[in-house]
Amino acid sequence: MKTFEPVLIAGAWRASQDARASFCAFDPTTGEETGHEFPLSGAADIEAALVAASEAAVELAACEPERIAAFLDAYAAAIEADAETLVNLAHTETGLPREPRLAKVELPRTTNQLRQAAQAVRTSSWTQPTIDTQAGLRSHFAPLAKPVVVFGPNNFPFAFNAVAGSDFASAIAAQNAVIAKAHPSHPATSKRLASLAHRAAIENGLPAASVQMLYDFDHALGARLAADARIGAIGFTGSRAGGLALKAAADAGGVPIYAEMSSVNPVFLLPGALAERRAELAQEFFASCTLGSGQFCTNPGIVVVPQGAHGDAFVAAASRLFADAPAGVLFSQGVLTQFRRGLSTLADAGAQVLAHGKDSAEPGYRQAPVLLGVEARQFLAAAQVLQTEVFGAASLIVRADGTAEMVAIARALDGNLTGTLYTSKKGGIDDAAAAQVAYALRPRVGRLIGNKMPTGVTVSAAMNHGGPYPSTSHSGFSAVGMPGAIRRFAALHSYDNVPPHLLPEDLCDANPRGLQRLVDGIWATGSIGAEKNP
Amino acid sequence: MKTFEPVLIAGAWRASQDARASFCAFDPTTGEETGHEFPLSGAADIEAALVAASEAAVELAACEPERIAAFLDAYAAAIEADAETLVNLAHTETGLPREPRLAKVELPRTTNQLRQAAQAVRTSSWTQPTIDTQAGLRSHFAPLAKPVVVFGPNNFPFAFNAVAGSDFASAIAAQNAVIAKAHPSHPATSKRLASLAHRAAIENGLPAASVQMLYDFDHALGARLAADARIGAIGFTGSRAGGLALKAAADAGGVPIYAEMSSVNPVFLLPGALAERRAELAQEFFASCTLGSGQFCTNPGIVVVPQGAHGDAFVAAASRLFADAPAGVLFSQGVLTQFRRGLSTLADAGAQVLAHGKDSAEPGYRQAPVLLGVEARQFLAAAQVLQTEVFGAASLIVRADGTAEMVAIARALDGNLTGTLYTSKKGGIDDAAAAQVAYALRPRVGRLIGNKMPTGVTVSAAMNHGGPYPSTSHSGFSAVGMPGAIRRFAALHSYDNVPPHLLPEDLCDANPRGLQRLVDGIWATGSIGAEKNP
Repeated sequence: MKTFEPVLIAGAWRASQDARASFCAFDPTTGEETGHEFPLSGAADIEAALVAASEAAVELAACEPERIAAFLDAYAAAIEADAETLVNLAHTETGLPREPRLAKVELPRTTNQLRQAAQAVRTSSWTQPTIDTQAGLRSHFAPLAKPVVVFGPNNFPFAFNAVAGSDFASAIAAQNAVIAKAHPSHPATSKRLASLAHRAAIENGLPAASVQMLYDFDHALGARLAADARIGAIGFTGSRAGGLALKAAADAGGVPIYAEMSSVNPVFLLPGALAERRAELAQEFFASCTLGSGQFCTNPGIVVVPQGAHGDAFVAAASRLFADAPAGVLFSQGVLTQFRRGLSTLADAGAQVLAHGKDSAEPGYRQAPVLLGVEARQFLAAAQVLQTEVFGAASLIVRADGTAEMVAIARALDGNLTGTLYTSKKGGIDDAAAAQVAYALRPRVGRLIGNKMPTGVTVSAAMNHGGPYPSTSHSGFSAVGMPGAIRRFAALHSYDNVPPHLLPEDLCDANPRGLQRLVDGIWATGSIGAEKNP
Repeated sequence: MKTFEPVLIAGAWRASQDARASFCAFDPTTGEETGHEFPLSGAADIEAALVAASEAAVELAACEPERIAAFLDAYAAAIEADAETLVNLAHTETGLPREPRLAKVELPRTTNQLRQAAQAVRTSSWTQPTIDTQAGLRSHFAPLAKPVVVFGPNNFPFAFNAVAGSDFASAIAAQNAVIAKAHPSHPATSKRLASLAHRAAIENGLPAASVQMLYDFDHALGARLAADARIGAIGFTGSRAGGLALKAAADAGGVPIYAEMSSVNPVFLLPGALAERRAELAQEFFASCTLGSGQFCTNPGIVVVPQGAHGDAFVAAASRLFADAPAGVLFSQGVLTQFRRGLSTLADAGAQVLAHGKDSAEPGYRQAPVLLGVEARQFLAAAQVLQTEVFGAASLIVRADGTAEMVAIARALDGNLTGTLYTSKKGGIDDAAAAQVAYALRPRVGRLIGNKMPTGVTVSAAMNHGGPYPSTSHSGFSAVGMPGAIRRFAALHSYDNVPPHLLPEDLCDANPRGLQRLVDGIWATGSIGAEKNP
């Protein structure tokens, strides 16, 4: 009989107290079990984690920021030191290539993100210290003093992992304890990360329950947890159905939830761009759509292409690339099933298959990329169903007759993470049309992109990895980029005529660290009452 | 037969298309009708407003910021020019004193707030322009391009009026069209304000449907409106029951809602403060609790007083003040009924009446102030019910034996807008206890206050008029204070490698207005690519 892997609760790796079942991770390239068995936690594990996290959260809220920053740095270093093992585990569990994806792209992005969070802690950029000397008022963003629950997705075993990714780094940077719900498609990777995080937490003097992790629990328990008033906030990345169910529970409990749920990331190719570089664009589009077997939330799922010879040539070139492409590996049988269901949904709504890559007889969860097409009129007549997200390497080409139809398509779109415009690089041939499409597209997307594909999310203060509902649950927040992402897990605290000894350090008169603070409407780095800023 | 007053829809004052009923405003000092009849709007009015607002919102989102600022300034000036009429109307409909409250406090606060919003527009402080020159990424907060619905409360006919208050000013500053749902207890005041706002909008070239107003509609229609995907966001100030019902509807529709719902604003009197100035504190407390007949969201509803002689003396002094106090006028029969229901709830849970002011035989909605008391042990045993908000001049004194009981009381509190500590002004006698109480209180309140009563909300960037659930629906936002309050009604927009001609003005390289922008992590006022900041 196999032993279940232990869960991380209250500062210790221990057996699940009430595993309701167990599950295995599968190697997507073979469809075979990877040899470990993980518990599906029951209510007792969740309650134990919640009790421990609630205590840790109160302690953490009062902890020295430098300790938090040191933890984040130490964790980043530990991940780097363990890179080979982590990459091998993640490769086995996700089928993603070791290089460049896991070792050269995602792992460095993850450690970079943790270090940017550390930097945001050290500079207090996320607390946004604001001082009104006339009114005697001071405010900043502060820890929730309640745990944050992070639900990780299947598609980034490192950079969005519930115990290592952006939500984790953000929640910890805001001095909150985290209860991570790993994704069951990569439990061993998550376990390894959690053990590194836990060790770094202990070594840097954080409360033992600052980081806890469960591999999985069922939806009903997830909903119960989401509505629990002891929770400070929730970060979720995953499917729209899962996100909406969790959001309904969290909303009912008054718990803020930041759910990233779905996006088809429309790409508009303007006539000048097509005339200029259609073969290059077809290649770019194909590469972006099939990268990581298309399993990105920013995958280009809809491409709007003008009618006419240049558009035809683009579609022909893209179709050839898709038709020649080998099958890719998807994360799980579930993803594969959903992908095929999505294709049927689009086909039932009138989309034609323009190209289908090469099927594979190899084992595992393999799927050829698929290119579909519809006319603008068809799209507009069934816009809701035709913008169903198909998670994987599939995209729908919509042929549009002129700027007016492009604008109409943009207007028919739901909230998305991104929207892209390709325009001519010479002269201003596309300028007028681009302005019209951008005007229609802008309020419907979080990130407007020029002349490059939407995959690839830079960790930057100016990034918005977010967007209007239903792409996310709140259009005012980004899930990626410090310090903004951190503020999702913070409360606004004002101090009104409060004696100096009760003020937090970043709001005191003295500003020895030269923090950037908004003092009487001006961003300044000096101390209050000093002659001038140093 | 009386004529119903017209509603403001689609740029015109017109008869309600489907009034389901009508209602009158009452003079609370007499209980008599004030002579006008207002329609209770049906679905047709709401739909017409929504259609017009949706168009206006898209236009407004693209409008020159200076026009928005000019509108806000012009509206403020129009309110000042019409002050005498407005004050008289509001006095008749609310019973609030003309002076100082309406004319000298609330009206200037309202115009000041509109002008601060104009200033935030001119300086783009609310858009928080953020530029990453290395990554080619730029982001800022931007209009929703969908209308904002504002539900106004009964207790501030100007400063929180749905068509003039903080939510209105904030939503308009973020370049959104507003559909105002006035409070039915002051419809004539709201009509007058709406006509000034509408005229100022037209004169400053805003779309005709930028400002619309309905006097009232029933809860079912309100819920339907709140869940409508055409709405960008909702601002609500009112009761917890009303707020939670609206929040449930908005949540289901994926519409962000900022609801300010309830607060008992706990005040902790520390032993040193009591020993030093108990008579003065009793006077301050009494004045704050009975101001405006106690109809403030920041009314001190719970006062924690140490056991012992100084505490006894404070309670005796406060009791005398309450016992000698005349009845005050409440806004409506509904408020009066709810007040008495609230008193019964507290009494049923074990609160004793310590003092009851002088009843009045005069007509109108009159109620004497009431002071109640419980022991800490009783409070802790029934903390949920004993922190029921009683809207009006009532407060519950909780007697606590030592710091540990004070801390336990703080820990038993729900989310509140404010929490106050009174401490000794000499030496550090209260410092240790204050730190302990503040530590427990801090995460449970939006604004921590030192040595003054919670009533009085300064309009400042460092204000937080907000707090943890259920005092509001989101602890990260303040309903008062620019530019923060404006960001509630904004979406985060990122621009990734976007051609310069598609960038909004505040994100362009050139920065001729010297806006404060976060450029590569540093707040700066210069242009990008310039040698250095001017």
